[in-house]
Amino acid sequence: VTEAAVSDPVPSWSGVPYLTASELEHLYSVEEFEPLAKERMTPTAYGFIAGWAGSGATTQANRAAFWRHVLLPRVLVNVETIDPVTTVLGNPISLPVMFAPSGYQRLAHPHGEMATARASVEVGTTMILSTSANTSIEDIGAVARNPWYQLYWLTDEELNREMVQRAESAGFRAIALTVDATAPLWRENEMRNPAEIPPGVLSVNTYDRAVKIAPNLTWKTLDRLRSWTKMAIVLKGVVTAEDARIAVDNGVEGLIVSNHGGRALDWAITSMDALPEVVEAVDGRLEVYMDGGVRRGTDVLKALALGARAVLIGRPVLWGIGTGGEAGIVRMMALIRGELTSVMGLCGAPTVAQISRDMVARRQDVVA
Amino acid sequence: VTEAAVSDPVPSWSGVPYLTASELEHLYSVEEFEPLAKERMTPTAYGFIAGWAGSGATTQANRAAFWRHVLLPRVLVNVETIDPVTTVLGNPISLPVMFAPSGYQRLAHPHGEMATARASVEVGTTMILSTSANTSIEDIGAVARNPWYQLYWLTDEELNREMVQRAESAGFRAIALTVDATAPLWRENEMRNPAEIPPGVLSVNTYDRAVKIAPNLTWKTLDRLRSWTKMAIVLKGVVTAEDARIAVDNGVEGLIVSNHGGRALDWAITSMDALPEVVEAVDGRLEVYMDGGVRRGTDVLKALALGARAVLIGRPVLWGIGTGGEAGIVRMMALIRGELTSVMGLCGAPTVAQISRDMVARRQDVVA
Amino acid sequence: VTEAAVSDPVPSWSGVPYLTASELEHLYSVEEFEPLAKERMTPTAYGFIAGWAGSGATTQANRAAFWRHVLLPRVLVNVETIDPVTTVLGNPISLPVMFAPSGYQRLAHPHGEMATARASVEVGTTMILSTSANTSIEDIGAVARNPWYQLYWLTDEELNREMVQRAESAGFRAIALTVDATAPLWRENEMRNPAEIPPGVLSVNTYDRAVKIAPNLTWKTLDRLRSWTKMAIVLKGVVTAEDARIAVDNGVEGLIVSNHGGRALDWAITSMDALPEVVEAVDGRLEVYMDGGVRRGTDVLKALALGARAVLIGRPVLWGIGTGGEAGIVRMMALIRGELTSVMGLCGAPTVAQISRDMVARRQDVVA
Amino acid sequence: VTEAAVSDPVPSWSGVPYLTASELEHLYSVEEFEPLAKERMTPTAYGFIAGWAGSGATTQANRAAFWRHVLLPRVLVNVETIDPVTTVLGNPISLPVMFAPSGYQRLAHPHGEMATARASVEVGTTMILSTSANTSIEDIGAVARNPWYQLYWLTDEELNREMVQRAESAGFRAIALTVDATAPLWRENEMRNPAEIPPGVLSVNTYDRAVKIAPNLTWKTLDRLRSWTKMAIVLKGVVTAEDARIAVDNGVEGLIVSNHGGRALDWAITSMDALPEVVEAVDGRLEVYMDGGVRRGTDVLKALALGARAVLIGRPVLWGIGTGGEAGIVRMMALIRGELTSVMGLCGAPTVAQISRDMVARRQDVVA
Repeated sequence: VTEAAVSDPVPSWSGVPYLTASELEHLYSVEEFEPLAKERMTPTAYGFIAGWAGSGATTQANRAAFWRHVLLPRVLVNVETIDPVTTVLGNPISLPVMFAPSGYQRLAHPHGEMATARASVEVGTTMILSTSANTSIEDIGAVARNPWYQLYWLTDEELNREMVQRAESAGFRAIALTVDATAPLWRENEMRNPAEIPPGVLSVNTYDRAVKIAPNLTWKTLDRLRSWTKMAIVLKGVVTAEDARIAVDNGVEGLIVSNHGGRALDWAITSMDALPEVVEAVDGRLEVYMDGGVRRGTDVLKALALGARAVLIGRPVLWGIGTGGEAGIVRMMALIRGELTSVMGLCGAPTVAQISRDMVARRQDVVA
Repeated sequence: VTEAAVSDPVPSWSGVPYLTASELEHLYSVEEFEPLAKERMTPTAYGFIAGWAGSGATTQANRAAFWRHVLLPRVLVNVETIDPVTTVLGNPISLPVMFAPSGYQRLAHPHGEMATARASVEVGTTMILSTSANTSIEDIGAVARNPWYQLYWLTDEELNREMVQRAESAGFRAIALTVDATAPLWRENEMRNPAEIPPGVLSVNTYDRAVKIAPNLTWKTLDRLRSWTKMAIVLKGVVTAEDARIAVDNGVEGLIVSNHGGRALDWAITSMDALPEVVEAVDGRLEVYMDGGVRRGTDVLKALALGARAVLIGRPVLWGIGTGGEAGIVRMMALIRGELTSVMGLCGAPTVAQISRDMVARRQDVVA
Repeated sequence: VTEAAVSDPVPSWSGVPYLTASELEHLYSVEEFEPLAKERMTPTAYGFIAGWAGSGATTQANRAAFWRHVLLPRVLVNVETIDPVTTVLGNPISLPVMFAPSGYQRLAHPHGEMATARASVEVGTTMILSTSANTSIEDIGAVARNPWYQLYWLTDEELNREMVQRAESAGFRAIALTVDATAPLWRENEMRNPAEIPPGVLSVNTYDRAVKIAPNLTWKTLDRLRSWTKMAIVLKGVVTAEDARIAVDNGVEGLIVSNHGGRALDWAITSMDALPEVVEAVDGRLEVYMDGGVRRGTDVLKALALGARAVLIGRPVLWGIGTGGEAGIVRMMALIRGELTSVMGLCGAPTVAQISRDMVARRQDVVA
Repeated sequence: VTEAAVSDPVPSWSGVPYLTASELEHLYSVEEFEPLAKERMTPTAYGFIAGWAGSGATTQANRAAFWRHVLLPRVLVNVETIDPVTTVLGNPISLPVMFAPSGYQRLAHPHGEMATARASVEVGTTMILSTSANTSIEDIGAVARNPWYQLYWLTDEELNREMVQRAESAGFRAIALTVDATAPLWRENEMRNPAEIPPGVLSVNTYDRAVKIAPNLTWKTLDRLRSWTKMAIVLKGVVTAEDARIAVDNGVEGLIVSNHGGRALDWAITSMDALPEVVEAVDGRLEVYMDGGVRRGTDVLKALALGARAVLIGRPVLWGIGTGGEAGIVRMMALIRGELTSVMGLCGAPTVAQISRDMVARRQDVVA
């Protein structure tokens, strides 16, 4: 898919037409997108995207963790101008919500990552391209603004190096190295119903090579990665203070507190529960992001109050694209932005810098 | 609607007749009113009144917060005379339950605020008139006893001043300045189904002016308000100890611990959870009220035990008026009074002054 | 109903035959009795017996409180002989489960309190006769072994004195003075559906007098009661350490930690939650009993582990009598005794004296 | 059933054919086995195997206790080789999951314990043979590798001695003395629907003797047991630190933290809640195992992180055998091994020794 072609209408995988821009205007919450996207993809594609590891406990818990946090608004603050703009790794984003890496986006919509990239520019945020993308590093680099590249460290070391250097050449700003999925995963649903990959939907940046995630990735491997690139290195999947401190000692630029959306380790601690101690451990020496279960503007505010610099959303991007392509993501993000702006104002934090730790409490902290 | 006209029977918005006084006698709990009122108004009016911000979490949590509090009754106290009479801002009310401000009461019943005002007199409590009322300040002032005026600080500063001074002239006792809704709200239901306002149902005290809530209301603005009136100033929507202390320092006379019934900030701390620390912070230097989720006599007792001088009820007034007009509110209040009187006696607190902090415990305080 | 007549078969209120002794043998848990009893009484009688105050929260919470307590068994204790025998006020009972007072037992079964009294003898436990009984003090005194008399302090002081002295003459051992219901109760269900009392079902010990519960009962009143009788005085309805200490100072012989089965104060603390601090406050200076939600042998063990000398059961007695008269209670108690005996043995406490505080823990005490 | 005969196909008790090895390959989680096994046995056999004491609270809580524990994975550990091998009492097992003793396994499948023994060898783990087995001690000893013998201490002391010495002669490695069921049990379901034992299904190691569990088993009895054998002695059913310390003082070699799968004491503390304090009390002086509710690889990892050396599974073995005989158990164990291997790798613990206490947290420990 080239950039130009993305503008053309395209039939969905199921034949059900995608929503038009004006139809998208009648959606008012992120959760409305999922069933609409489901109708427009194949059952196994939906199963793959919605899926999880083991019993699904981590995925459910990620969402529920937000429900255990409440907001304590401050009043009588001037909120004439409310703007969620911020920066990540020094680059501006129009709101603290980035696009998480997810592979095989053409399963969600034929335009795949290209539509996502265009939407990221329209929205003004950072897209993280997956190692398993169906679109080339160079095509995304030509469109996206300050994108990051998610790296699965593969057993083919030369391929790792190639991907990193292609990303740097294409204008990517950071490598998001996934560290929470180096062992074999246990996904019962996928064992029962393996995803069917349509002809032509390829992991284009790796497909002509034997691809296997390397199980021997360690802290020492980071030195090798560092030697290949000047891009920032961000570790995706750190949830303990201990590992966060080691990351600081290794000169990493950022951490994504994440449990892989519940797709890797079943019964993992939720990102919201892990976030505070990671933030405390790094003590401002690097940037901390989080993902897992973010669906509303209030979720974003809660995560930022706990110390995240920004959050990532994964499945919502795919529900957006699967409902209406690029325009679907743009609408989905407009809703998150709209609610985030509202609640920042209502909490007395018209800028991201004014969001403070005491604006959020866990329910069990709230004691008479 | 003039006062006289309120006595006349009137058809409901839906055509379903309002309950008569004798039919109302067969209602025994506040929660029975809501479905009856719903049948008698338009769907969008019901949606507007019952509605909430975002996911509705705050509204639900307000109610659930009462369920986390239990009562510890004292025994062998003489309860021959049980009387919940008290005062607010020095003015007597027959029970510690005031009528919260809510706009557009004619959507609930054609007699609107006038029926509410008459009911407040019959019940012997204080009514707070909304900035968005469908009845004039002067008409209410002529009927209600010691009413308060709820003020949305508008961008039209002259209009603010006019409303305040009209209220003072009409005999209002306090300005309840809403401080928890100065940013744009995010109400998905209203975006989906905007409330239809019938012809002639007007925000009569503001309608001929460009009306917009001012986003730049701050603590400094209070000085201007203070300079316009000798009425007490009460801030509605404070939920933190920090803001409570600033309010004391600013010479405010009262605070309403409130999250706007869940209609402003989604996932806000509940009023019951916020109440104790606000009460502790003000340490008796001003009066503290609360609203949000009060539906039963036990709720009132719990809130008073945590330090509230009185509570406010909002939607129940509209369900009362929507079920049977003035008589509907009177019946609804008789039920709250009946249960409150019973439970004050059963707790060994026949007067409001005898309700003490140790009569209420959060479940998690209750440990063997 | 005379004692002799109790042996005769009798038709139930609804006409559905009572279970025979052999049919009762097929019941294996207390909870099976309630629906069977319901079928055999009138709807309003069932409503009265099953009913509660306000929202019913206290009644539900009483039961749920047991679910928050777990047992920690000790092993390798000799349990050849397991016997739950104990004493209350110095009199032996074959197991630590007494029959709570409940009025109008003829609504549950035409033999009413007389069947209960006979069952109490057969089971070997203490029955507490209600002020609102349908059977005379003397008739029960002639049958029951060491019964107690529950006293509602009425406004007719002479009647109070008569009841006390009749009870003492009839061989009763204690006055259980109800202290948690001196104010008007708020029972919505009864307001909606008042219990219909069949002709001839009378509160025979009070019916020819103007009967009203005295709202001015206080600690001082106890002196008057004490001056009338040598029977022990037990207060029913104490749930705080403060009142427990005052009771000790007033020379009371026993306390029943109780919230009236949820029939008086809605949202009251549960008996299981109140029990530990009452036990600690009295520090062995009087006997502490409890009621509220006991349905199983494990419940009895939990309450005793928290310091109760015995428990009372109320509604289960009425479900027993309502299912099969005297034999119904006997079967119901056989089930409680059977399970209690089992779990005492399994916990390593073959006698009541060996049941210890560390055999029970609240779930939140159980931390890794 | 001789070993040879186990290889032959056999009709199930219900006539529904057992799954073939290739059909078993389509099962992907342990919980899928139970309904399949249920279809293949008699209703009362299913009731007996699935059953519990009292209300069933312990059985439910065992499972739910795992849901209150979350995993905190460490990252960037080399997980090229993940192997859950370990030892119990010095003997190697290929993964830390043993087969709990359960009687009358021929109710689940005609091959009974012989199929289980063969599966244990194929899987490479330890089987614990029940006192109530349908297969002789010697037949199992000839097949199983390092099996243990579960002993109910019976009133026939000579029989106890015979069983112990037969087990030792047959190559068993330990006596697992059950200490949590010496008093009569209270199983309502079995009272209602007693298990029907088909002709020929006998407790072959005890059937020709009067069999009754001895209620007078105490710590002193252990000396007698010790005098009969050199096998290790493991106590099954210890849940308190106090008893654990006494066990250490008595020279016991191992403890199984267990509540008998909820089949003995209703409302018992869960094994997961009891485990940490038992582990702390023994302080490495003997081996601690646990059972109760283990169904997934994550459960195993959580229990080991809390200090268990291995876990036991009971009902899952019977669901396995009841679904497909020996092959059913093998498939069931392959799933547990598969998930355990995955989550050990994902947690950064490729060997059992690397599983550490800080990899698991109770949800309420997880505080911001």
